[in-house]
Amino acid sequence: MSNVKVLPLLEPDVVACCPPLNERPMSADEAEAAAKMFKALGDPVRLRLFSAVASHEGGEACVCDISDVGVSQPTVSHHLKKLKAAGLLSSERRGTWVYYRVQPAVLAAMSALLAGTAKEAV
Amino acid sequence: MSNVKVLPLLEPDVVACCPPLNERPMSADEAEAAAKMFKALGDPVRLRLFSAVASHEGGEACVCDISDVGVSQPTVSHHLKKLKAAGLLSSERRGTWVYYRVQPAVLAAMSALLAGTAKEAV
Repeated sequence: MSNVKVLPLLEPDVVACCPPLNERPMSADEAEAAAKMFKALGDPVRLRLFSAVASHEGGEACVCDISDVGVSQPTVSHHLKKLKAAGLLSSERRGTWVYYRVQPAVLAAMSALLAGTAKEAV
Repeated sequence: MSNVKVLPLLEPDVVACCPPLNERPMSADEAEAAAKMFKALGDPVRLRLFSAVASHEGGEACVCDISDVGVSQPTVSHHLKKLKAAGLLSSERRGTWVYYRVQPAVLAAMSALLAGTAKEAV
């Protein structure tokens, strides 16, 4: 259908890892993998940057696109790298800039993990 | 329909706070509220305890029900209190024990926040 080049997909452990939280108690390994993702979003600045990337045109952004969260460009870069290390963003260099993109599979897995809990607990 | 007594519902800021992450960049206040919740789940032991409560019969549990995550009872209590402070659990004392229960509205809001991102980014 399309010739759009897709960024290589990372497949962090969480994608395959975790059933809904209310299905059964998580194992230590599962919790270790999933906690990394939640921790990455557990910082207000990182969360704002993540939402800046996610809501940017085309679902991707470079440091050059993000300047209004009140931190310096090196700090923005530092946090984007942390989000990438946690598997929540992928990146691709184009010329001078590195472009970051949200990882839909990982986010869908995190969302499902919580959604199951929310649904069953009602 | 039912006479079941419902635990008092907390309504932490996140419930009303946050649109899907890809809708627009989060404000500082929104990020502050949502990051607290993610941070609470960003610790492997807390995440295991949370899943132990969520998957326990009836969606609630006391410290007395949770003994297999490899930490002492005071540590379990400490983490459950942190999850409560973040708005993810509510609690009720019955006799000797405090019973903890998942907060479905908060989890649904967190799940929706991520689900929007996952969907739009595909």
